[in-house]
Amino acid sequence: MAKIKRLALLLVRLTAFAATLSATIVMATSHEKASFFAVSFEAKYSQTPAFKYFMIANAIVSVYGFLVLFLPSESSLWRLVITLDLVFTMLLGSSISAALAIGYVGKKGNTYAGWLPICGQVPNYCDHVKGAMVAGFIGVIIYMGLLLHAMHTVLDPLLLKKP
Amino acid sequence: MAKIKRLALLLVRLTAFAATLSATIVMATSHEKASFFAVSFEAKYSQTPAFKYFMIANAIVSVYGFLVLFLPSESSLWRLVITLDLVFTMLLGSSISAALAIGYVGKKGNTYAGWLPICGQVPNYCDHVKGAMVAGFIGVIIYMGLLLHAMHTVLDPLLLKKP
Repeated sequence: MAKIKRLALLLVRLTAFAATLSATIVMATSHEKASFFAVSFEAKYSQTPAFKYFMIANAIVSVYGFLVLFLPSESSLWRLVITLDLVFTMLLGSSISAALAIGYVGKKGNTYAGWLPICGQVPNYCDHVKGAMVAGFIGVIIYMGLLLHAMHTVLDPLLLKKP
Repeated sequence: MAKIKRLALLLVRLTAFAATLSATIVMATSHEKASFFAVSFEAKYSQTPAFKYFMIANAIVSVYGFLVLFLPSESSLWRLVITLDLVFTMLLGSSISAALAIGYVGKKGNTYAGWLPICGQVPNYCDHVKGAMVAGFIGVIIYMGLLLHAMHTVLDPLLLKKP
């Protein structure tokens, strides 16, 4: 039973690693050349600080997620891992929120500020960024679940186990 | 000693409550009328979804922070509070990141997307929003500290106490 649970947790962490890695790669490869009245320009993730932050945060969490996969299950470092999970989940959540906020302006624009949507000009770029965000979102949801599971195991916050 | 520690934690939570409440109020009252070539317009937080999200998140966390202040220190609900702290810290961090990302575009613009900075036209509005973000940032840092402190107490992740 404990072995199955350990294997399940490993699979969940593997999925989280895959999600953050895909988010990194998809965001890093998002670019599109477009021309608009003979003016040609290129849209790239590195032109937007929020997308750069998203890419870097996902890359960092991918490296962390990869390393954790190799931690032996008896290691006493698992207690540190829960704390690191917390820090990296915050980082991921913050980067996705920033990217989503900018992506929303890119999609819908903001008429009050006079910011026009750009997705009409560079639809492929927009789809690419959207894909990266979906992957990042899956990653943060999984890490959030892992954290809540750890909390549940350690703290029993809902007091389900009667003493 | 335990009493002093409890008092210190209460003071920290009071500060966090004050910070999120100020962030809510300062953001909610941020607006400025400006005219630009005979066209007059008003800048308000509610025109930007990210700022609305920031305001709502801070309001929710303020209510939560206020309620927790009255929880008796012997209550077994404190274990639930740690988990709720986690959820609300994620919410705060996410809302601040979104607001910061938009605020950055408002301040610096984004030449690639053709989004012009607007702080030159509505400087008071910008200062207001900046103030709200500083308060929100203080709030999230304190909640992050509370969480790490709880982790440290419960899990001892750095294995400082030798068994």
